[in-house]
Amino acid sequence: MAGTVQSGERKPLPASLVGALEERFAERFQRGEAVLGQHGASETHFATVLPDAVVFAHSTDEVVALVKLCAAADIPIVPFGAGTSIEGNAAPIRGGISLDMSQMDRVLAVHAEDFDCVVQPGVRREELNIHLRDQGLFFPIDPGANATIGGMASTRASGTNAVRYGTMKDAVLSLEVVTPQGDVIRTARRARKSAAGYDLTRLYVGSEGTLGIITEVTLRLHPVPDTISAAVCSFETLGGAVDTVVQSIQCAVPLARVEILDAKQMTAVNRWSKLDYPEAPTLFFEFHGSASHVAEQVETVKMLAEANGGGSFGWSNLPEERTKLWRARHEAYYAAVNMRAGAIGWATDVCVPMSRLAECIAETHADLEGASVPATILGHVGDGNFHVIFSIDPDAPAELEEVEAINAKLVERALAMDGTCTGEHGIGIGKQDWLVAELGGAVEQMRVIKRAMDPQNLLNPGKIFAL
Amino acid sequence: MAGTVQSGERKPLPASLVGALEERFAERFQRGEAVLGQHGASETHFATVLPDAVVFAHSTDEVVALVKLCAAADIPIVPFGAGTSIEGNAAPIRGGISLDMSQMDRVLAVHAEDFDCVVQPGVRREELNIHLRDQGLFFPIDPGANATIGGMASTRASGTNAVRYGTMKDAVLSLEVVTPQGDVIRTARRARKSAAGYDLTRLYVGSEGTLGIITEVTLRLHPVPDTISAAVCSFETLGGAVDTVVQSIQCAVPLARVEILDAKQMTAVNRWSKLDYPEAPTLFFEFHGSASHVAEQVETVKMLAEANGGGSFGWSNLPEERTKLWRARHEAYYAAVNMRAGAIGWATDVCVPMSRLAECIAETHADLEGASVPATILGHVGDGNFHVIFSIDPDAPAELEEVEAINAKLVERALAMDGTCTGEHGIGIGKQDWLVAELGGAVEQMRVIKRAMDPQNLLNPGKIFAL
Repeated sequence: MAGTVQSGERKPLPASLVGALEERFAERFQRGEAVLGQHGASETHFATVLPDAVVFAHSTDEVVALVKLCAAADIPIVPFGAGTSIEGNAAPIRGGISLDMSQMDRVLAVHAEDFDCVVQPGVRREELNIHLRDQGLFFPIDPGANATIGGMASTRASGTNAVRYGTMKDAVLSLEVVTPQGDVIRTARRARKSAAGYDLTRLYVGSEGTLGIITEVTLRLHPVPDTISAAVCSFETLGGAVDTVVQSIQCAVPLARVEILDAKQMTAVNRWSKLDYPEAPTLFFEFHGSASHVAEQVETVKMLAEANGGGSFGWSNLPEERTKLWRARHEAYYAAVNMRAGAIGWATDVCVPMSRLAECIAETHADLEGASVPATILGHVGDGNFHVIFSIDPDAPAELEEVEAINAKLVERALAMDGTCTGEHGIGIGKQDWLVAELGGAVEQMRVIKRAMDPQNLLNPGKIFAL
Repeated sequence: MAGTVQSGERKPLPASLVGALEERFAERFQRGEAVLGQHGASETHFATVLPDAVVFAHSTDEVVALVKLCAAADIPIVPFGAGTSIEGNAAPIRGGISLDMSQMDRVLAVHAEDFDCVVQPGVRREELNIHLRDQGLFFPIDPGANATIGGMASTRASGTNAVRYGTMKDAVLSLEVVTPQGDVIRTARRARKSAAGYDLTRLYVGSEGTLGIITEVTLRLHPVPDTISAAVCSFETLGGAVDTVVQSIQCAVPLARVEILDAKQMTAVNRWSKLDYPEAPTLFFEFHGSASHVAEQVETVKMLAEANGGGSFGWSNLPEERTKLWRARHEAYYAAVNMRAGAIGWATDVCVPMSRLAECIAETHADLEGASVPATILGHVGDGNFHVIFSIDPDAPAELEEVEAINAKLVERALAMDGTCTGEHGIGIGKQDWLVAELGGAVEQMRVIKRAMDPQNLLNPGKIFAL
């Protein structure tokens, strides 16, 4: 259904705007082919759409200046982080300026006693964790890719740790935002909770850059647990692996991470990451807590795994072993795509109530078994969230069509189970029709908000919903 | 600063509207003095403001019908739950209809496997927990009063369990809302997480009935922990009690509840609840987890308490003892107010980063020691959130003036510490100027949203901010 989104009219940059941007940003205003290409390409199957120019911002003041210039010239701005989004979220489909925030990458403050920090939006999550390491703190949200914090806030990212630590909606305490009118606002103070007015923080989180440009983020941090244990366990059946997770969650085991990978995905991981795991449905676990608390968690989960056809647990307790394990998990997308030479990736995600997860995965797996395109299942099953990754031939339109049909069936299945069309990728341009199928009249309230806050439709136009 | 909010014009109910409402709601459309008084009175110091009529709704369809009739007649609607809010949040300051949701009080579904339930907004939290008890589940949000779920969602309530289980922003998975245009929308599906479009759920949570009328709430539940231990510990100094909490949080002890009560509050509690606790600064604790995990938590906290001048822990491990303990805590407001015969309560709350809590409480305590009005400090200090309750003579304007000055100093202090003017009571009519002091230009974005979603200013007009 991605094809139903129209990219709309593009208007060339007026010469006066080009002059003003050159003057203000000098070499950080760029129109070279390579730079435009980097900012218009997708990690997945979406066609490249070039912006008319790229601006690299260094400060909130510069973002304000850019917004005012573009508003006056009626030229769109599309905020850009690391370019790792999945649903075309940062594609400049109406042209205009791709506003690259990646050079605003300073950690401004760490308040260790308060378990929070203040960062610029271009900080990447891995660099943030390196920065925090010697203070005994970590930032748990981990979508796989080394995304920017601003991008993660914009798409309400989550990932492997969400089952225990929540998503970006839980991690963001406060934002500094530049509005489409060029005003700078702060959405909240640094207190752990507040009942002061509308929750603008969570309105901007997940709004995909359509309501304002995030220029500063205050994040909630967590103490590094005393004990961290990671393990891999393979299962006779995919259903046995899923049931183990569902039952663990229902037994209230506070799993820090629990990831499913189907047999095909394990084959791909072995090949890509040069590993030799059994090529069977597999769970990757991580347990956090005190030594005795971790031991308790492990005992419960091992018992459940055994009852569901799981093999022995392969432990990775040394930091370097854990790093290797999770690197393999993080590379799973590339591993899956590269099952075929020259293929490109097509990724989707849904999230359903836990009680429906086993059924949803089983039916989806059956669909994939019957497909002509290689595809894998993997995901953050502790939340009821999983991905399907298709490895498609970019020159075979029939494959794209087949994948679109399987995806449609998957999303319809998830919606019929009272689930969502996207657990963590966002809507972008890829899931706009599904958003309407999922939330109906609520989408009209979103439009009302967008029209009121950005009446000129200046910021990331054409995303999330058609106006 | 409550006095700066103008109640604005009131327009009498047109006869045609009265006729239509009588026809539609029969005996559930009421204009008797007693009923109007119940819906216009405040639990705190705000003057009673009567609505022109009260309507008791029984269904979403009835709410839709009411909204359409009132919109056509341009008569305001103020949603009403249990009437336990603190900042005049449900006061019908422009007259119109007080829409009483308390008879929409059915639990519609409990999905035990998914740890969620669907309720009508008039369900009260204590009744919900009675309903859930035999399924091994509980709903943790506990603001003290036996508020309705709809009211709690509207004010983004939190309370004693928030330090471990979060606030209503974390507890609400999805809402059914009637818009000011009479449309019925659902804000999200029942999946544990979603990245599908703007987070309308969290926009309505805390919007105090100004953007839509909540007619159904899907709530996240938690399993009743294996072990629950509650304890009371008194301290030589208030600072010692605060430091114990701050250090426990910084040691990442997952306290389920931790409440501070100053010496005066303990005197009031002893008198009101017929107890004989030492009349010294005191912490009420609750620990949740497996037996060994609770033991670990207790060990850490006892060590910290001892180092900070705490006495021995008085344990309440039997359910009936715990109930008695927490009843005393929940009655603390009434206990404080009734320190003087014929007095009324004046309650405020702030929330600051943990690193500033000790300083904030110490300075506030010094202010109260110098005041001529009796006042106590109590609160949910694990979040950095605490209350001051003044017991004032309703016939002494000088007392109101003195209390307003102390409150102003308290809020200014909290804001200077990067805290918020309200951790959990909301803005209502009492803290509108403080909201502007706290968030500045962000309040204008709230106004833009309100004007767009409720252009007629039909729902709870005059609340949170002036338009």
